[in-house]
Amino acid sequence: MTEKEWLKYLKKYIIENSYVIKSKNEDCAVIKLSKNKYLLFTTDALVEKIHFHFSYTSFFDLGVKLATSNLSDIAAMGGEPKWALLTLGSPKPIDKSWINPFMEALTSTLKKFETHLVGGDTVKSPFFFVNLALIGETKNPIFRKGAQPEDYIFVSRPLGESSAFLRLIQKKSLKDIPESVKQAHLRPEPEILLGKELSKQKLATSMIDISDGLLIDLWRICEESKVGAELWEDKIPIGNFATLEEALSGGEDYALLFTVEEKNLKKLENLAKKFNRNFFKIGRIIKERNFYLIKGTKKLKIKPKGFDHFEN
Amino acid sequence: MTEKEWLKYLKKYIIENSYVIKSKNEDCAVIKLSKNKYLLFTTDALVEKIHFHFSYTSFFDLGVKLATSNLSDIAAMGGEPKWALLTLGSPKPIDKSWINPFMEALTSTLKKFETHLVGGDTVKSPFFFVNLALIGETKNPIFRKGAQPEDYIFVSRPLGESSAFLRLIQKKSLKDIPESVKQAHLRPEPEILLGKELSKQKLATSMIDISDGLLIDLWRICEESKVGAELWEDKIPIGNFATLEEALSGGEDYALLFTVEEKNLKKLENLAKKFNRNFFKIGRIIKERNFYLIKGTKKLKIKPKGFDHFEN
Repeated sequence: MTEKEWLKYLKKYIIENSYVIKSKNEDCAVIKLSKNKYLLFTTDALVEKIHFHFSYTSFFDLGVKLATSNLSDIAAMGGEPKWALLTLGSPKPIDKSWINPFMEALTSTLKKFETHLVGGDTVKSPFFFVNLALIGETKNPIFRKGAQPEDYIFVSRPLGESSAFLRLIQKKSLKDIPESVKQAHLRPEPEILLGKELSKQKLATSMIDISDGLLIDLWRICEESKVGAELWEDKIPIGNFATLEEALSGGEDYALLFTVEEKNLKKLENLAKKFNRNFFKIGRIIKERNFYLIKGTKKLKIKPKGFDHFEN
Repeated sequence: MTEKEWLKYLKKYIIENSYVIKSKNEDCAVIKLSKNKYLLFTTDALVEKIHFHFSYTSFFDLGVKLATSNLSDIAAMGGEPKWALLTLGSPKPIDKSWINPFMEALTSTLKKFETHLVGGDTVKSPFFFVNLALIGETKNPIFRKGAQPEDYIFVSRPLGESSAFLRLIQKKSLKDIPESVKQAHLRPEPEILLGKELSKQKLATSMIDISDGLLIDLWRICEESKVGAELWEDKIPIGNFATLEEALSGGEDYALLFTVEEKNLKKLENLAKKFNRNFFKIGRIIKERNFYLIKGTKKLKIKPKGFDHFEN
């Protein structure tokens, strides 16, 4: 089955009830512990030759990326990451030459956000794979559901450079690839601080992290919120070395994509000032359940295109 | 490095603090949520050709085994399992013919113990692997640490048949292997109900599940409790088709191994009656930090021998 069919199929096995208030179609499962306390629970794996190649990924990079891909799921719900378990599958005996940089990168990336590794499982495996399971907490989870017509669509930083890396590495050696492009793909940063602040101030009506591409992740917000969207092409922030196509459909950006009511725009501006950064207003939610790309005076109806994890 | 060196190495990256009251040398990380509420957090992976072979493991078996290996870690601490995330790595597109039995087995085994699958990650992979991350809760965690000299050592059921399976399958076809041996290896049962009751009644001074072999797992209890043990060979319950060696050093039994003070033996007897089953009193904790096997009138000093996950 395709990834879409699989996600639909999985739903019959995944529970939502009065405790598990959200598990389907979300970045994390959301479990209500008490009136104002929710556990967030997520897991993400990286597999050699599928998600990374050691020809261009160092063990340090792998540690950063594993931490970020999981932390980003917690960020997407406005949570505070807390405790993580590592599963490490290795085809060869563990050796300090490679385990040191991996563990240093993993735990230092987690610690930046006060997150602690508390255990795990280590197994022999024909290939390298790493899996993290991460628990977070929040008082106010932000869901994909919640975007309303008229809300503005924001993205937290320029897009596409992570995807540009995969294009450039086909033709160039690692040392000839611009630093920002390497960083974007190999050592991405999760938006934990922003997610937490949006949750605390209740500024976002919906949120997701861009892991599979702007269009497909915005489409997920729209599906859950039962709305549509128009995107303003000239407002989409494109990474310096990325193409528009990469900004729209490239994956692994780990930027936050969120929607904000007009009345909260001023507060968001203040938050940007506080963080000394910009957020990018790239479009608007519409009632009609379709997607439009506004190119100057043209309005194109588009279909989301993104990464299917089972596509060949 | 060997598994022992690796576990020692890992310690510098794994945190214990006022919230994470236990993470090193335990079946689960133990996180204190409030005075009487602890989260238990564990993960366990199964990898094709390392932990199982499809020549004798069905997808249904795999689902049961993944659930049990994780549930058993919660049982070992006296916990109630609650919520699980599945990571599925598959080399081929997902197809109902195999995903149905796997998901049915996994979720029905979890549900037997009121545990719910709440999400996960699905990835392409050059080989099959499955990983579960599981959260449990308890009011009274039972640790490996806590065994005292004079305590009696108990095991919850006969040992060695899971290991006997691996011997028999070398020579026989699956259909010629006795049913109890197949069950023990392919569809083991976690001791959740027993673990919970031992925790509730505060009957066990220490506990572990036998995943790597009786001797090595008892050795772990002794190391953490800073004690030694004597085992009574003729009291060790050996599965019908297992050898003594398999009962002592075979893995994946998922029985509980626990220590009980003399004053609580009567209560344990009542618990056995309530459950309509036997527990097996197999030895005693001693102050001297050594291991002895009592064979009739002989007393042999022994060394634990068990499964090293990196041994070739």
